[in-house]
Amino acid sequence: MTSGRPPGRNGMTRLKFSLSMSLDGFLAGPNQSREHPLGEGGMALHDWAFAARDGDDAEAEYANLWSKNVGAVIMGRNMFGPIRGDWGDERWNGWWGDDPPYHTPVFVLTHHAREPLEMQGGTTFHFVTDGIESAFERATAAASGRDISLGGGASTARQYLRAGLVDEMAIHVTPVLLGRGERLFEDIGDVLGDYECVEVAASPVVAHFTYVRKNGS
Amino acid sequence: MTSGRPPGRNGMTRLKFSLSMSLDGFLAGPNQSREHPLGEGGMALHDWAFAARDGDDAEAEYANLWSKNVGAVIMGRNMFGPIRGDWGDERWNGWWGDDPPYHTPVFVLTHHAREPLEMQGGTTFHFVTDGIESAFERATAAASGRDISLGGGASTARQYLRAGLVDEMAIHVTPVLLGRGERLFEDIGDVLGDYECVEVAASPVVAHFTYVRKNGS
Repeated sequence: MTSGRPPGRNGMTRLKFSLSMSLDGFLAGPNQSREHPLGEGGMALHDWAFAARDGDDAEAEYANLWSKNVGAVIMGRNMFGPIRGDWGDERWNGWWGDDPPYHTPVFVLTHHAREPLEMQGGTTFHFVTDGIESAFERATAAASGRDISLGGGASTARQYLRAGLVDEMAIHVTPVLLGRGERLFEDIGDVLGDYECVEVAASPVVAHFTYVRKNGS
Repeated sequence: MTSGRPPGRNGMTRLKFSLSMSLDGFLAGPNQSREHPLGEGGMALHDWAFAARDGDDAEAEYANLWSKNVGAVIMGRNMFGPIRGDWGDERWNGWWGDDPPYHTPVFVLTHHAREPLEMQGGTTFHFVTDGIESAFERATAAASGRDISLGGGASTARQYLRAGLVDEMAIHVTPVLLGRGERLFEDIGDVLGDYECVEVAASPVVAHFTYVRKNGS
């Protein structure tokens, strides 16, 4: 298998992401904190999606793409929270309150073990300490034939891209210019040649680029 | 003057660029050579413009934006040619044949002096060895009230951005993924906060982002 992708439990499950990027290439600004979950200036990357998600037009489709036909989510630890190192008293339960918007199992990549955290509405956070392939296998099993949504952040997306595990990517290029932060495309290299763009579309505030892995790659 | 912009001979002359970028942020691929003037894979960034430039629709407008109301051009040496170091026998006259598409004075930034090179059709290449501000002043004088087009490449565009001298930028984001090459936005920092996006538009093959410097900055 040239893609490096291990056999999943269900061949139909695809790993995909739908991420908002600044025109200068960043998924988040610098200096993430509780006050700035997406780094300084990073929230502006999502203005278009917040404005669009409750509508019924094409923009709403793009804004909700990350959750379409999704049975499991994978995210990096920094997307789950601003805490570094040990979990401490384990009182941090994510940014999203008691009922997170995922409603599926969510696999959080971390170096620090923690018991699963069951929230309201069907979201359970599982903390995976043995690497991205392990998280991918567990998410594939949990997805039951639906897709896996790769939530981010940039480091997590880059790791899965480099490993050849991403099947589809939607990148929403916003006119925001951050100047610094977390880049999506940094040292990805040759694997990007495996993708073809299947759609370019724009509204007055964002441009959407959709890529799929080419047949056979 | 917070912009760092020195007084020009004509207050109406604006420095602008219109550049095609890969979705992953590059203006050219790696390993520029005579065979690959835009680096390996870089020519694909301009497919949309070659297809559009002789049409009469909005895409043609974008493709020809770089030359609209332009009285002078500034470019980096690598855009002028693949030669490094001394000019040698000075037989290199650019990539464009006897009648380059500029039809104005063109100021080439270089560390190596060379006599001006007059081509057919009104293009004269002037080789500027005393820095970007000097080239800007000479181009402003030559433009006679029209604009200055910053041709590239990435290093040259970055230098003018950092110096606060760019008034307008049109960035054409193509679905090309190069993986490596010359980035437009690298270590630009705070100056990008001076710009506001005035238009986002897309065709099926490219998305256009237009920025102008905010009033007062």
